[in-house]
Amino acid sequence: MLKVMFSAKPAAWEEYRETLMTAFDAEGLDVDLSRDHDPAEVDYIVFAPNGPVSDFRPYTKTKAVLSLWAGVETVVGNETLTQPLLRMVDHGLTAGMVEWVVGHTLRHHLGMDAHITQQDGVWRDTVYPPIAAQRTVTILGIGALGAACGQALHGLGFPVRGWSRTPKQIENIECFSGDDGLRDTLSGAEVVILLLPDTPDTRHVLNAETLGLLARGGFVINPGRGPLIDDDSLLAALDRGQVAHATLDVFDVEPLPKDHPFWSHPNVTVTPHIASTTRADTASQVIAQQIKRGERGEPFLHVVDRQAGY
Amino acid sequence: MLKVMFSAKPAAWEEYRETLMTAFDAEGLDVDLSRDHDPAEVDYIVFAPNGPVSDFRPYTKTKAVLSLWAGVETVVGNETLTQPLLRMVDHGLTAGMVEWVVGHTLRHHLGMDAHITQQDGVWRDTVYPPIAAQRTVTILGIGALGAACGQALHGLGFPVRGWSRTPKQIENIECFSGDDGLRDTLSGAEVVILLLPDTPDTRHVLNAETLGLLARGGFVINPGRGPLIDDDSLLAALDRGQVAHATLDVFDVEPLPKDHPFWSHPNVTVTPHIASTTRADTASQVIAQQIKRGERGEPFLHVVDRQAGY
Repeated sequence: MLKVMFSAKPAAWEEYRETLMTAFDAEGLDVDLSRDHDPAEVDYIVFAPNGPVSDFRPYTKTKAVLSLWAGVETVVGNETLTQPLLRMVDHGLTAGMVEWVVGHTLRHHLGMDAHITQQDGVWRDTVYPPIAAQRTVTILGIGALGAACGQALHGLGFPVRGWSRTPKQIENIECFSGDDGLRDTLSGAEVVILLLPDTPDTRHVLNAETLGLLARGGFVINPGRGPLIDDDSLLAALDRGQVAHATLDVFDVEPLPKDHPFWSHPNVTVTPHIASTTRADTASQVIAQQIKRGERGEPFLHVVDRQAGY
Repeated sequence: MLKVMFSAKPAAWEEYRETLMTAFDAEGLDVDLSRDHDPAEVDYIVFAPNGPVSDFRPYTKTKAVLSLWAGVETVVGNETLTQPLLRMVDHGLTAGMVEWVVGHTLRHHLGMDAHITQQDGVWRDTVYPPIAAQRTVTILGIGALGAACGQALHGLGFPVRGWSRTPKQIENIECFSGDDGLRDTLSGAEVVILLLPDTPDTRHVLNAETLGLLARGGFVINPGRGPLIDDDSLLAALDRGQVAHATLDVFDVEPLPKDHPFWSHPNVTVTPHIASTTRADTASQVIAQQIKRGERGEPFLHVVDRQAGY
């Protein structure tokens, strides 16, 4: 019987306990799932950074640490973690992210806010937005989430550009990479979506200089990570109209403090880190499948590269 | 040289004059386009219902009347019109409609309005919407526009149901038809999109009885035609929470009068008939292609059935 340690907040235990056991059964895995195994006997750790385990040295037999979160920036630098760390790539999380990104892209593209907030009896039927084919969307970060968003936006007719640190080729996305590629992809960009991981290299990727490359009146949508944006530079770009509107789901400090200027800025929409979440049912299936791969001697999927940071 | 009469408002003449000539050239058609040909010599009429021509009897040689509008309800009953009447099926209009419908569906699905209007510094991160796969969308009217919207929504993961007067089979859409089918498709519906033509049969298709079939707290989105909805029944359904929100782009009287209760209802979003419009560049291509079909002796596309009314 496999010993699987669950290390996350108590609320997550309530949420995952049954869905994990159902998923283990479905994969034919005989599992003893607990929050207090003897570390020396643990085969796998299901892990969230806000749970009790932070020193991995006693887990001498552990074959992999399975993150419940897509973002691993708070654990990747933990020097006691020598076991393989697996990122969560949950199809439910991907679906939710695609819906949020496409929804907010269309919201800005169609100018919905004016209609939602301005029900004043005045019939303003003179302005039509361009069609999607006439508005390019730029995605910084074309991993699993960014690429899925790009395909969905392409399916609606938007030309899609994508940028990644290392060169990629992805169907339906015009791909850019490296420092020069970043300048090229942001030049004249009308809608910029941030889905990069949080690493020292990506910190403040949107700053005074790069925000100045966008088309005047562009939109910024950040469902990725807070540190990707230099907040002060974004506020300045909003104030001078260089950026028309920013919809931000993630922040340097979360919850976003009540007195942060993003809350009160008329051209910022704050959403409380709800763009997407790991969903217990689908994430449990992913975890069971990873453990089954390990038990069969197959390579794990989505192993974190400690150097790259994701 | 073909004589093509242009009968629409002067503003449309300014908009279409050059794009039509460009499209005729592209199809190799030699056309004399004018607003004041001798009726007896006119080969084709490019037509909008708000233009000068309303008596078609003098147009004895005219081979077809090409509507600039997708909706033909104001001309289909004109007894002087014996020439073939061709509906506008403009791919630019279709694209715009798909964007508007998908955008507002995602807006309701994601609960965006709360975030847009409620920037009060309170971090509400406890409620996640279901993913699209868990929310069925129902489209009444699965012609060119409705089917295109259905495919786009399916592409985002929504299960899609469609209803039409006569039976249809469309990939990715669960199709219903007839009176019994209408009850079945509306029963428990969470999002209802109206894209039916305006005919005596479709008048008030959403009424007190059919609105009562929806799932409690459902959404109604009407980019089709105003008379599809019984306004009083919709207001009553909104007031009792049976319908959570209605986003309406079309009305019995347009512009919607300033004192109409839709403007002031907190759970209604009025948009001023901008869901989509015929676009001069793409519509001109469609017109040129139809005329070329006529000159080659090929059957016209999208000929209006006078009995059905569309």
